[in-house]
Amino acid sequence: MADYQAPLKDMNFVLNELVNIQKLATIPGYEEALPELVSCILDEASKLAGEVISPLNASGDMEGVKIHNKNEVKTPEGFKSAYQQFSEGGWGSLQFEPDYGGQGLPFTLAIPVQEMWHSANMAWGLCPLLTQGAIEAIQANASEALKSRYLPQMIAGRWSGTMNLTEPQAGSDMATLRTRAERNGDHYRITGQKIFITWGEHDMVDNIVHLVLARLPDAPPGVKGISLFIVPKFLVNDDGSLGKRNDCQVTSLEHKIGIHASPTCVMSYGDNGGAIGYLVGEENKGLVCMFNMMNNARLTVGLQGVAIAERSYQLARDYAKERPQGIAPGESELGMIIKHPDVRRMLMTMRALTEASRALTYVACTSVDYQEKHPDADVRKYHKARAALLTPVVKGWSTEVGLEVTSIGVQVHGGMGFIEETGAGQYYRDARILPIYEGTNGIQALDLVARKTLFDRGAAMDSLLQEMRTLITEVKQSTNTLKNESTTFSFAVEALADAKSQLLKEVKDDINWSGSISFNYLMLMGSVCGAWQMLMAAQVAEAKLALTDSDTDFYHAKLATARFYLDQILPRYLSHAAMVKNGSQAIMAMDEDLF
Amino acid sequence: MADYQAPLKDMNFVLNELVNIQKLATIPGYEEALPELVSCILDEASKLAGEVISPLNASGDMEGVKIHNKNEVKTPEGFKSAYQQFSEGGWGSLQFEPDYGGQGLPFTLAIPVQEMWHSANMAWGLCPLLTQGAIEAIQANASEALKSRYLPQMIAGRWSGTMNLTEPQAGSDMATLRTRAERNGDHYRITGQKIFITWGEHDMVDNIVHLVLARLPDAPPGVKGISLFIVPKFLVNDDGSLGKRNDCQVTSLEHKIGIHASPTCVMSYGDNGGAIGYLVGEENKGLVCMFNMMNNARLTVGLQGVAIAERSYQLARDYAKERPQGIAPGESELGMIIKHPDVRRMLMTMRALTEASRALTYVACTSVDYQEKHPDADVRKYHKARAALLTPVVKGWSTEVGLEVTSIGVQVHGGMGFIEETGAGQYYRDARILPIYEGTNGIQALDLVARKTLFDRGAAMDSLLQEMRTLITEVKQSTNTLKNESTTFSFAVEALADAKSQLLKEVKDDINWSGSISFNYLMLMGSVCGAWQMLMAAQVAEAKLALTDSDTDFYHAKLATARFYLDQILPRYLSHAAMVKNGSQAIMAMDEDLF
Repeated sequence: MADYQAPLKDMNFVLNELVNIQKLATIPGYEEALPELVSCILDEASKLAGEVISPLNASGDMEGVKIHNKNEVKTPEGFKSAYQQFSEGGWGSLQFEPDYGGQGLPFTLAIPVQEMWHSANMAWGLCPLLTQGAIEAIQANASEALKSRYLPQMIAGRWSGTMNLTEPQAGSDMATLRTRAERNGDHYRITGQKIFITWGEHDMVDNIVHLVLARLPDAPPGVKGISLFIVPKFLVNDDGSLGKRNDCQVTSLEHKIGIHASPTCVMSYGDNGGAIGYLVGEENKGLVCMFNMMNNARLTVGLQGVAIAERSYQLARDYAKERPQGIAPGESELGMIIKHPDVRRMLMTMRALTEASRALTYVACTSVDYQEKHPDADVRKYHKARAALLTPVVKGWSTEVGLEVTSIGVQVHGGMGFIEETGAGQYYRDARILPIYEGTNGIQALDLVARKTLFDRGAAMDSLLQEMRTLITEVKQSTNTLKNESTTFSFAVEALADAKSQLLKEVKDDINWSGSISFNYLMLMGSVCGAWQMLMAAQVAEAKLALTDSDTDFYHAKLATARFYLDQILPRYLSHAAMVKNGSQAIMAMDEDLF
Repeated sequence: MADYQAPLKDMNFVLNELVNIQKLATIPGYEEALPELVSCILDEASKLAGEVISPLNASGDMEGVKIHNKNEVKTPEGFKSAYQQFSEGGWGSLQFEPDYGGQGLPFTLAIPVQEMWHSANMAWGLCPLLTQGAIEAIQANASEALKSRYLPQMIAGRWSGTMNLTEPQAGSDMATLRTRAERNGDHYRITGQKIFITWGEHDMVDNIVHLVLARLPDAPPGVKGISLFIVPKFLVNDDGSLGKRNDCQVTSLEHKIGIHASPTCVMSYGDNGGAIGYLVGEENKGLVCMFNMMNNARLTVGLQGVAIAERSYQLARDYAKERPQGIAPGESELGMIIKHPDVRRMLMTMRALTEASRALTYVACTSVDYQEKHPDADVRKYHKARAALLTPVVKGWSTEVGLEVTSIGVQVHGGMGFIEETGAGQYYRDARILPIYEGTNGIQALDLVARKTLFDRGAAMDSLLQEMRTLITEVKQSTNTLKNESTTFSFAVEALADAKSQLLKEVKDDINWSGSISFNYLMLMGSVCGAWQMLMAAQVAEAKLALTDSDTDFYHAKLATARFYLDQILPRYLSHAAMVKNGSQAIMAMDEDLF
């Protein structure tokens, strides 16, 4: 099984040329995040990812996780040590506030670093991912007392965090949530069962900070009666030391298709009188606090799609370069399978989807930095709308990319792809969770349609479409060799614009319209957004190739990959647009009883 | 986990209305295969599949297979008993010659029966599938002596069969095959290692008949120097009783993503002087014998795609009808998820792809019967070309359907889909082998392009396109409510015709053209062929609905499913056609070194 090598050149390219971190570094507080420092940080992260975390991926999958000593979870060999190195290297603190021990760097910079963890070992990477989400929720919503008690340890990586939303009857719909919280002096007593709790119990850290959604006895029904609580595994004394075990524990682990090394816990709260919890934010406003945190988590799950696609691509590419089979067209003797056009098609598809989804994900994450930190309110507003618009696309489309690319990764290996030892199968199995968790892609699509398109009457979408049209004009006026391809892109952009207009119109008369077209609308937008980034990348690559001292190999490859995307991936917009256009009728025509 | 219920109504519908078994029964020898008998046979098979074989699917996946006693394979609990019931019921003998104990029924009739085995338990179903292939190869190519020695036991299901092609260095390309055969009196001595041998060793039968490709010492190099041999696990005495153990054995089992209950064996031949083998057909003509057998095996692997899609659909449908979550548009209270348009889209996609691929597969298999048995040479010739044309489409497209549908099946379940106990994950894992084995889908696509389109200058394709155009004319002249959809279909048919014409033209100047466009050409054709069958089905359904005594529920559902296919699946042709049109340039543009 090949080792993981972080795609540092492409990461730096996206950061420097598409994200423009130099411009990001003009934001007060981000002055140090210049290309040189960023590149150094990525280099260092790539060593930990490639040398320490990645070698544990296959072994972790095989060994899995187990409950022992009644309510403890044993992680696979090497996981704890890798996590310690992660903590000691300060990798969990990059983008957090210096007040609590963070390094105050942009979220944008944390993104390629996190991509590396997930490429190296998605199951392991979920522990920092969830911890990051918990930190964000506490940072944004908790009292100063709670922040100073919990954040320094979490940011330092000594404690991890979890998100406790799901209950057996409450998945996508939180309205039916039943876990109870009762007031008890300065704290609350929490009672109930939570399922699908990622890294809900484990042995890599000293304490686990659970963020738990629960309902007060006098709360209004539905989603307006949900509050958010910190429920630590070990209570924390006033001096910051760990006190007694709280009344919460893992009761079982799920047996899953993939991410075997990530414990997915059934958690029981309050079997002995109620777990002690501390309110985060206001009573009954818990869902808003949790959703804020979930926005970034959705972006990082999209990033996991990119990461697993990259890993799968690397393995398939290496295999295709080393596996002799058959005589390719124009050759006279046995050659490596990369010479065969159909294998080339598969590899280019993997590569183009991975690079496009990486660029889109990074660019979307940068809007989060602007939205939070830019001194100009108009700029913040613009990026807030942009981040909101792109978040469901990044989560939905990039995870579908992860699924597709890992499946092609199996196929490139032929029969060997079906054998576990090859490794391609693990990526395929692991990737299957991505379109499901952190809000299924169906939910993402509804978010894109309802909250991100209908709510502002398409304003954020119009602004994005306008930027795409500007790019087309620029390409047409330049010496770019992708002029033909940019024509395809312009058709795709107008198809997306039409889909948006049709949505705004049809939704008035047809209650099933938005739910029927939402998934294809999201996939249409993902395909177009990927093309948008790849066409920009091609513009840069052509300009760089005109310079004599540039890394011509990299830019030639970027140009070829961009051309492939526009030529062989973008045409998918035709299908998605046609399906959107056909609307809800055929989808809803069959009586429920006839299924 | 829900039980499997054979879709008897749809199977009978396809056989009666699309395949037209009544017409097939006019072929001498097939007179008995009339709808009533066929329906009875399907009923009986559905009981064995649903009550005996299906309940072993999940337990077989969990238990897996193991080597014990050095070179024996222990199959999961219950597998052997189920196989005995299968043999005793005569299920392995349906379509074989009465001379050797077969029932002499059409291959067409064996197809729905086999679909049931694969839906019920794909891992188990592979044993009869491989046995059927071995029987066909022996029946068509072996001497009378070999036939009478082996066929009766194999057709009776007392002995099973295997196909031994692959070696570590020889996968898709058989030219590099190394297993050796040396002449030794009336038999041969076989020495070499074979991998990926499905059901190469197991405990369900008394003897295993290996069909092995090997090379004689004086054979010409490449594929023209390969011979085919029968190598029985136990030698067979002149009186038909079993003699001593042959010099061949399993040395290890593969650890796979799916079909855990099907032993995938590394087989070693001749560790102690050479396994005794008997020549099938002529020396150095082995590949032709094997390929004849592989044609039907490719159809039945396509059928496995249909079968696993059906199973996955049934599970997802049942879940969607029973899982309450959220309030659907137009509803006022919590309802089942089937009410949500996006879930409906997923279920309809699963259903439409399954029904379309079933119809196409059955229809293609019927051409095999006509090609073999029809008294009129012209009819035989027509169907030979049709079967040849459709075989790679059935194998390639139906297995891609299997992959897609089982993935959606996971998605419909949300978080539960990722949990093994649900069962959706097993179908997803099992289905992943289908686009790989029996010739990867890349190889199928090359076959479709080269041998099935270029070789006859598109004649067989033109004949099919003409039938599609005739159907369109019929629909337009009828009262069919799918007139608009048939217009979409006519565009799709012409797009396929254009793709064929472009292929014939471009291939002259561009050696990479056919390999570059082949996969999209196959998927284009699959999408169009599925629509062809669904539009015919809609015609029948409308006619039946005009009668008062028809099964209106079934025909309404069929009509709705056909409409969905034409409206929400067929538009995929737009993408595939565009990608074909764009040709090889972007696919082959990047230097190999830049990957």
